Amino acid sequence: MSIVLADHRYGKAENRVVRFRRDTARHEIVDLNVTTTLRGDFADAYLSGDQSKVLPTDTQKNTVYAYAKEKGVATVEGYALDLARHFVDDVEPVSGARVDVEAYPWTRAQVGGNEHDHTWIRSGAEVRTAAATVSDGDGRQVVHVLAGLKDLTLLKSTGSQFKGFLTDAYTTLPETDDRVMATSLVATWRYGAAALADGFDFDAAYATIREALIEQFATLHSLALQQTLWHMGRSALERVPEAAEIRLLAPNKHHFDYDLARFGTDNHGEVFHAADRPYGLIQAVVANDVFPAAPEAWA
Amino acid sequence: MSIVLADHRYGKAENRVVRFRRDTARHEIVDLNVTTTLRGDFADAYLSGDQSKVLPTDTQKNTVYAYAKEKGVATVEGYALDLARHFVDDVEPVSGARVDVEAYPWTRAQVGGNEHDHTWIRSGAEVRTAAATVSDGDGRQVVHVLAGLKDLTLLKSTGSQFKGFLTDAYTTLPETDDRVMATSLVATWRYGAAALADGFDFDAAYATIREALIEQFATLHSLALQQTLWHMGRSALERVPEAAEIRLLAPNKHHFDYDLARFGTDNHGEVFHAADRPYGLIQAVVANDVFPAAPEAWA
Amino acid sequence: MSIVLADHRYGKAENRVVRFRRDTARHEIVDLNVTTTLRGDFADAYLSGDQSKVLPTDTQKNTVYAYAKEKGVATVEGYALDLARHFVDDVEPVSGARVDVEAYPWTRAQVGGNEHDHTWIRSGAEVRTAAATVSDGDGRQVVHVLAGLKDLTLLKSTGSQFKGFLTDAYTTLPETDDRVMATSLVATWRYGAAALADGFDFDAAYATIREALIEQFATLHSLALQQTLWHMGRSALERVPEAAEIRLLAPNKHHFDYDLARFGTDNHGEVFHAADRPYGLIQAVVANDVFPAAPEAWA
Amino acid sequence: MSIVLADHRYGKAENRVVRFRRDTARHEIVDLNVTTTLRGDFADAYLSGDQSKVLPTDTQKNTVYAYAKEKGVATVEGYALDLARHFVDDVEPVSGARVDVEAYPWTRAQVGGNEHDHTWIRSGAEVRTAAATVSDGDGRQVVHVLAGLKDLTLLKSTGSQFKGFLTDAYTTLPETDDRVMATSLVATWRYGAAALADGFDFDAAYATIREALIEQFATLHSLALQQTLWHMGRSALERVPEAAEIRLLAPNKHHFDYDLARFGTDNHGEVFHAADRPYGLIQAVVANDVFPAAPEAWA
Repeated sequence: MSIVLADHRYGKAENRVVRFRRDTARHEIVDLNVTTTLRGDFADAYLSGDQSKVLPTDTQKNTVYAYAKEKGVATVEGYALDLARHFVDDVEPVSGARVDVEAYPWTRAQVGGNEHDHTWIRSGAEVRTAAATVSDGDGRQVVHVLAGLKDLTLLKSTGSQFKGFLTDAYTTLPETDDRVMATSLVATWRYGAAALADGFDFDAAYATIREALIEQFATLHSLALQQTLWHMGRSALERVPEAAEIRLLAPNKHHFDYDLARFGTDNHGEVFHAADRPYGLIQAVVANDVFPAAPEAWA
Repeated sequence: MSIVLADHRYGKAENRVVRFRRDTARHEIVDLNVTTTLRGDFADAYLSGDQSKVLPTDTQKNTVYAYAKEKGVATVEGYALDLARHFVDDVEPVSGARVDVEAYPWTRAQVGGNEHDHTWIRSGAEVRTAAATVSDGDGRQVVHVLAGLKDLTLLKSTGSQFKGFLTDAYTTLPETDDRVMATSLVATWRYGAAALADGFDFDAAYATIREALIEQFATLHSLALQQTLWHMGRSALERVPEAAEIRLLAPNKHHFDYDLARFGTDNHGEVFHAADRPYGLIQAVVANDVFPAAPEAWA
Repeated sequence: MSIVLADHRYGKAENRVVRFRRDTARHEIVDLNVTTTLRGDFADAYLSGDQSKVLPTDTQKNTVYAYAKEKGVATVEGYALDLARHFVDDVEPVSGARVDVEAYPWTRAQVGGNEHDHTWIRSGAEVRTAAATVSDGDGRQVVHVLAGLKDLTLLKSTGSQFKGFLTDAYTTLPETDDRVMATSLVATWRYGAAALADGFDFDAAYATIREALIEQFATLHSLALQQTLWHMGRSALERVPEAAEIRLLAPNKHHFDYDLARFGTDNHGEVFHAADRPYGLIQAVVANDVFPAAPEAWA
Repeated sequence: MSIVLADHRYGKAENRVVRFRRDTARHEIVDLNVTTTLRGDFADAYLSGDQSKVLPTDTQKNTVYAYAKEKGVATVEGYALDLARHFVDDVEPVSGARVDVEAYPWTRAQVGGNEHDHTWIRSGAEVRTAAATVSDGDGRQVVHVLAGLKDLTLLKSTGSQFKGFLTDAYTTLPETDDRVMATSLVATWRYGAAALADGFDFDAAYATIREALIEQFATLHSLALQQTLWHMGRSALERVPEAAEIRLLAPNKHHFDYDLARFGTDNHGEVFHAADRPYGLIQAVVANDVFPAAPEAWA
């Protein structure tokens, strides 16, 4: 047998960067969690302990903070792309870089009915995500940008059923015409080349896809979470033609009718127990087939 | 020596009750985490294992869910009070009950610019809290209601300084005229007797205090988080005279200027590292002295 | 009405101190999470923003780390006491200090059957705790030391029943002669004055009480978790006469028999679903009545 | 444009199965977290809402619990494989199944120096993992088994350096000859075909690889975490020739020397601050090249 180093990568995870714009009295906030991952000519660091081609993860951290000022964070996607390009272009042993960003939402505090200039409230568990991947290919660079959201928790109190399913010897679930449907959505979409040209509005595209996801969840009469996901993904891609594909990961957060008949009380879909575990986990990849597939964008 | 049972209590923690109102096509949602704690004549359960006076925690759970329908949840404070009174009034060995409620916020989904009738989005880490305590006293019942919020994360990018502090041999902190101040506030207030009369609007009082806390945090030029807390608490009690006291617990979530001068870049309060631990922890109890103290309300 | 500052305190929470002893090739590790809380003459910091009596929490942090070397950490209780005494004795405005310590357990790595000199493995979620409180009283200092453990997860697969309990209209729980009993124990005990004299072996006392708690949980045929807690607490105090009281907080981590009869399969206490929430929460305070009560030790 | 369903899968996540063997008075415990994921002919469930080929996730849950009795859990790998094979063999629309298992460690309680028959203590954050994948291929089934561990937290107080690394304009890290190295290891290895034959001892192989990982971490003088990982992976594969490859994911949990010189105190690698974030994240895939690659085993 021969034991070999088959693959490797390294980086700095969870740099908590907070960036303010203070050009006027009305400040702006961007609150980020940034992770860098580098690929390249680092085998000697593993095999012989030679670190001469290894850019320390501490340096990557410094760069993450410095770029928040030197390049700025006009959009999270652009900032991730600037960083990924820097590592590949400026650090010789690096042949590929991925920069992942989570952005936490803040809302301006209200004072006397007006938005305050320099005070904010954290507004929700929902997180906006972005990832840029830059790789040296055959004489040219390959660039991918992902965007998305996670922990978008949605719930509908009616308009959802589940019946006509396959049964076997282990099936005990009753059919239902009316149930609570809830999920904590993770959605990630990949932009095609057109979005990487100057001037594409990542923030507007994000808002449009988020709205599409929510509207489909709300308005579609659901025959299953699977069907809901398909319509969510399809609507997102229809509204933003620069998006090549969208991946949806949706826990089915079960809400169980509490049996109040035992106490002589009716419960017409009014009182539920919200369970933690287990949960269904439904996944779908929806693609706009005018774009080529790009599995490397997701590695 | 003589070993004795000096105190005891028991209950059911973290009942996850979701309650919908479906009287019209426009549903309402209340999403709760409910904990019951009973005191009373339960020593035999400990000392001899005799359970004949012990109402099972499973029964407490059933009651929590049943009351969400039978009594309803007009306000979280009222619901907690109904439950606490039930245990003391209706279960003979129980001499005292505390019911703690956390309420999770949901916002209606927007569809085409309109609020949806039966779909919601979880809106934030912030949690509303309430606790009702009912105890048999000397021939009469003593009732206390606490209300509050937790995980209200506030941040201001300027308007905060910290200087003129005490120093000793271990002091290395530089003074600052302009820093980021951030906290994840826990505020709990106790209502006086007037609020327990019928018709008191707990929801309006909650909104008023929350607004007072946020406005003071935003607008006061802060000389220290201590001073900010005092003004937050004072303003809360001034605006809601039915509140007897307020307890504030505020982690000082440190944001450190990132030293970019090492890379030839200025950083005028624009790029920060948000640290996890350690954090300052500042506490204050602010009281309206027309009310008697009630330490037993907080036990 | 008159709004007043009724109480206040402040400190630095969750200082993550790791201390090695490297006097010989066989190193020793102590891994701590330390929180300081000071009381004293700090009202002006709140009321007028005057910080001249406020020792910064950053200074408290520095002191926590410095004392790990200057005084050392012979025992976690002694280290907490050194720190608390320092703040009260050496910092003029401080009239009371509490220092809380969590200690994380590590086990030496085994290499070729032998313990390694300088490599360890984190051994368990269980945490050892200690807290020292020092307060200026009437002309003399009052000192209290608490010790304990948390997240000690215990489970027994038989030897536990629950029946003969009180029932009401909301009771549906069946009685059981044989159930799984599991808890994630929090135990905290207070030492009397004798333990504060030089030479008391806190580590031996800790080990003795931990053993007592585990042995009682294991060997007592349980009629209820309440009864188990009483015997655990009593045994702990009997074995360590320097301990004045012990407080036990025990979630009843429910394990539900999975109904396999629906699939034609017997389940004689063999397959369970381990539920997350809700859980019973049982509490007991057991005291050795040769000691005076000391509620201030727990504030 | 044409929007298409490009991929999909679904299952039940985090079934918390606790299984006892009670054949003799000395019981045995297996404590699992089981997740099922199915692939197959489910497109109609998404596209038209037709659920007739969808085995409910609730049924998958029932099967997970039932198999813990009907097939038993002789090894976690075998149990995962039994379940995965069942879904593919017995449920017509299923063409591929993956079953992931986490196993939580318990140690027998000691009573009077002896192991107790039916009481255990949770022993550590460390988790053993296993995953079985069964897929219909061209006329034959493809089977893969992964095994591993996560949250194995290792620390060494010396025997680790980091110097001679690449520098650029953003590099400020000083070189070091002696540092603390700590990680919370995730290791996952894939077994080759020989391990899937009857009689292979998964438990022994697990213990051997775990020992190899720990011994290399402890004994290798580390020039970087990268080098340490390579030696850990190589040793694992050398000792268990049935393992085809191993993937290592290692956060570099930074411990920073606390600067005590400011207080006139020496600190020779004795007092550290354990930081939470950011952390280095080092990854390696080490392979035994007598085995063919199998990227589908990791999907």
